[in-house]
Amino acid sequence: MRLEGIYAPIPTPFVGGEIAYGPLAENLAKWSATPLSGLVVMGSNGESVLLDEREKVELTAFVRRHTDKKVVAGTGCESTRATVRLTKAVADVGAGAALVITPHYYKSGMKDEALKRFYTEVADHSPIPVILYNMPRNTGVNLAAVLVAELARHPNIVGVKDSSGDIVQMAEVAAAAPDGFAVFAGSGSYLLPALAVGARGGTCAVANILPEECTRIFRLFYEGRLEEARRLQHRILAVNRAVTARWGVAGLKAAMDILGWFGGEPRPPLSPLGTPEREELQRILDDFRSTGA
Amino acid sequence: MRLEGIYAPIPTPFVGGEIAYGPLAENLAKWSATPLSGLVVMGSNGESVLLDEREKVELTAFVRRHTDKKVVAGTGCESTRATVRLTKAVADVGAGAALVITPHYYKSGMKDEALKRFYTEVADHSPIPVILYNMPRNTGVNLAAVLVAELARHPNIVGVKDSSGDIVQMAEVAAAAPDGFAVFAGSGSYLLPALAVGARGGTCAVANILPEECTRIFRLFYEGRLEEARRLQHRILAVNRAVTARWGVAGLKAAMDILGWFGGEPRPPLSPLGTPEREELQRILDDFRSTGA
Amino acid sequence: MRLEGIYAPIPTPFVGGEIAYGPLAENLAKWSATPLSGLVVMGSNGESVLLDEREKVELTAFVRRHTDKKVVAGTGCESTRATVRLTKAVADVGAGAALVITPHYYKSGMKDEALKRFYTEVADHSPIPVILYNMPRNTGVNLAAVLVAELARHPNIVGVKDSSGDIVQMAEVAAAAPDGFAVFAGSGSYLLPALAVGARGGTCAVANILPEECTRIFRLFYEGRLEEARRLQHRILAVNRAVTARWGVAGLKAAMDILGWFGGEPRPPLSPLGTPEREELQRILDDFRSTGA
Amino acid sequence: MRLEGIYAPIPTPFVGGEIAYGPLAENLAKWSATPLSGLVVMGSNGESVLLDEREKVELTAFVRRHTDKKVVAGTGCESTRATVRLTKAVADVGAGAALVITPHYYKSGMKDEALKRFYTEVADHSPIPVILYNMPRNTGVNLAAVLVAELARHPNIVGVKDSSGDIVQMAEVAAAAPDGFAVFAGSGSYLLPALAVGARGGTCAVANILPEECTRIFRLFYEGRLEEARRLQHRILAVNRAVTARWGVAGLKAAMDILGWFGGEPRPPLSPLGTPEREELQRILDDFRSTGA
Repeated sequence: MRLEGIYAPIPTPFVGGEIAYGPLAENLAKWSATPLSGLVVMGSNGESVLLDEREKVELTAFVRRHTDKKVVAGTGCESTRATVRLTKAVADVGAGAALVITPHYYKSGMKDEALKRFYTEVADHSPIPVILYNMPRNTGVNLAAVLVAELARHPNIVGVKDSSGDIVQMAEVAAAAPDGFAVFAGSGSYLLPALAVGARGGTCAVANILPEECTRIFRLFYEGRLEEARRLQHRILAVNRAVTARWGVAGLKAAMDILGWFGGEPRPPLSPLGTPEREELQRILDDFRSTGA
Repeated sequence: MRLEGIYAPIPTPFVGGEIAYGPLAENLAKWSATPLSGLVVMGSNGESVLLDEREKVELTAFVRRHTDKKVVAGTGCESTRATVRLTKAVADVGAGAALVITPHYYKSGMKDEALKRFYTEVADHSPIPVILYNMPRNTGVNLAAVLVAELARHPNIVGVKDSSGDIVQMAEVAAAAPDGFAVFAGSGSYLLPALAVGARGGTCAVANILPEECTRIFRLFYEGRLEEARRLQHRILAVNRAVTARWGVAGLKAAMDILGWFGGEPRPPLSPLGTPEREELQRILDDFRSTGA
Repeated sequence: MRLEGIYAPIPTPFVGGEIAYGPLAENLAKWSATPLSGLVVMGSNGESVLLDEREKVELTAFVRRHTDKKVVAGTGCESTRATVRLTKAVADVGAGAALVITPHYYKSGMKDEALKRFYTEVADHSPIPVILYNMPRNTGVNLAAVLVAELARHPNIVGVKDSSGDIVQMAEVAAAAPDGFAVFAGSGSYLLPALAVGARGGTCAVANILPEECTRIFRLFYEGRLEEARRLQHRILAVNRAVTARWGVAGLKAAMDILGWFGGEPRPPLSPLGTPEREELQRILDDFRSTGA
Repeated sequence: MRLEGIYAPIPTPFVGGEIAYGPLAENLAKWSATPLSGLVVMGSNGESVLLDEREKVELTAFVRRHTDKKVVAGTGCESTRATVRLTKAVADVGAGAALVITPHYYKSGMKDEALKRFYTEVADHSPIPVILYNMPRNTGVNLAAVLVAELARHPNIVGVKDSSGDIVQMAEVAAAAPDGFAVFAGSGSYLLPALAVGARGGTCAVANILPEECTRIFRLFYEGRLEEARRLQHRILAVNRAVTARWGVAGLKAAMDILGWFGGEPRPPLSPLGTPEREELQRILDDFRSTGA
């Protein structure tokens, strides 16, 4: 599985607190018709930590059956054994790769050595390629460039999704890792600069709602049309912020509702957007469309 | 259930990666013979996040059967529904109260309103009293004094374990909360100052290995023997640091091994102490005993 | 100079942007009539970093001439040579001790070794006793307990004002430092718990406006009347927060204006409180007085 | 003064604790012979906070007389009035623009409104163009994109040196600011990605020792030779880290000594590099040269 291009980390739809497979099938049909390279199920936007293990496997199987895109499944748990068990289970139902977040509850215990052992053990036992997932804003743990470059030599570790926003770290990994190892931008807000320093794609929340635009930045960059790529990167910044740093999963789901997908409410304790936020989000999306005219 | 005194947040022993009930029974027999007021099972020191739901219920049931002390069970999960489900399950097997940590993966979504809804819903559905658990060092989320004081009015929320180390926050809660509400120091390192500002006890990792000393600080304080309490508080600082901030669960388990309890290894990805750390820990424990002579 | 009791870190009054010596003289007359042990000029509340070197020396001389209280002068600058020069200058005009904040612009360079050299050199050259000043919230640098305990052995280093709020750190210093060395609480919000772990007093912004109450907590503690001390500590929390963490120097000056001292406006870029904040502050002060009835 | 290209923020050489003008003249002669667009005197690398006001003006005058490059002078102080006074003084001796860091001691007082007033007042009174200087790692204060975009409309504010490393923030400013406003990368480690999102140059510590290479990245980028630009960007990462995040000013000065400039020792409390660090730095510089062969 060669990692490249734009992946959407899809949200998990709920109705009445349960996974809503009907609406999900409709969303999947839409994403499948876009130029996206793949989908990530059970990433941060998929409310992974709010799902039970059984739900995670069912969900992965369902997504696998309802799209021809590549499917990456988030399988990182706090314990090594739970991570290995879940990774095997999603592999059994057809996931193409596992996205494994750093364990993080015991932050002070997650030194480089412990993280190295964790990822090595998971990769050793995983039937499918492993992608490192660095998400310091949520975890309080950072995967340093030196460690990633070292893990990159493991034959079953094929890339890193770096959501730190630390562009120097991404450059350091791209400079130090073997050729086949893929650095992926963890957010659409720095997709272009990440490509500039050697990233091979991005897993971007905003790609759920702007799959064409994100893919277009990627293509423009490779065609050397940098000025156009920059204009488009600038254009998506405000929408990106609304569905990530500002309002998170609730913002992404609200934007999906506005734009004709099924979004719905997140699982508690996450709360849906209030009316004023929803109106402001509407304005941000309107602005986006008007600047594209 | 009136919260008062010193509780030990007991570690979960493992042998071959599985919960070691035999050694646990022996540890429980020892703790039961101390002046501790109670035990907390599945707190941070219990490696709660590394246990499966099934293990958690079994573990609680086992502890309940093997001690006459009060038993508080840690039941906080990321989702509201998982937290409620686990709280009911541990209540069914005899836990006296539930210690509920703040959800924290979606930190930016855990505003006061969301936390208020979360704790209210859990407390509404819990058959046993709920204790708030504030652990910012691990979670990156803080339970502000104003919010705790508000939640303290819920009839089924009886206290807070505050592991922030923020002594002003503890004072603010003690000043603002109703009389029946208990503030508990989350670490033995600030047990005495917490009592000074109105705490009613502590849940202290170090109480696992120094149950007599921690209880003694508590009693000396209430007898107005402040100078002696301060000397004892000073004496336990280095040991406390070794089994918390410095080496965490691995340090606590190593100290238990040294002192004649069963400690053993933590579950991966946590690592046991290396030999140099173990030797340094031995020196710290020796120093402690020599100063007490 | 034996450090003990309550010190007020006095604000520097300005009229038309210049130091207002007339109003300052009136304030000094009032503070001199209180049970305060001493005054700190050019602390954080004195807007030290907004004053020129010439102003600092004049100001110290003026305060020295207008009060019989002990006078401590803040003399820490970023460079060692400027700190030594200013320390000598304030000693020449009668300051009794120098309060020396950690250099902090080059945070990553301020490792323990560098701080140790800095304080040793300053103390070696200072004609007056040196007090360490730890203020991480403003500086981003922390003076660790181990380092303070080591510096405490220097014959010309007599104490530490710890504004970190880290009560364990204060306990560790009190436990490890020689007997003559004084730990001072850096805020009135944790005066009582600091005393409980071995502090010998406090330098508290709130002591500018509540000198009697702060001194009373100190005395009640030494008389073993802990319950009364705690009630008073609880009572001052909201006022303390208003004039420190919440509104800072501007809040303290506004409170002084309300309570009959001269406060006035801080120097730009600091801004005075707006009308809504001033009204809320008035309510907080009213609440304080009503609970004392 | 149109801001564009690569500026070196030059270190201030000292001999016996005093500014060493002879060695400085020699350094200036060398920099003047490079393709650098300009020099920044009294930036963070110039040990600005360790210099007296009189030294700052003399130093600026000296640099102005000894180079034909554009000269930008760092003039930000904690107080508005000191900043205005110094800005006028350096303008009088020929500085072409003023680089004004955020005031930062009173972090909690440095809200957007206060920063806006500060910069507006400085720009209103400055005889030369003002460049905003955002350096959160040292100051703990961040200039948000929205605020910078607003300040960018002031006719005397011409650019921002952003040393936050936050590539999204730089993109947001480039997207929102008027055309004439220049975003400058504050470090050589993210020069290329900053250019990719719309920056017009960089003020880079590493440009002091690698002026040709930094300028070459800039030119390759504008010629659309992105692949070569990326390779060069990758090559300078380790050297850049050594003279910034890792060893700071002391590292930069040591590297200058190794490479044939005059570096010397920083002013205390900054310490020079020890022997092991110096040897490691030598290896890093050797590696850099060998990869370029």
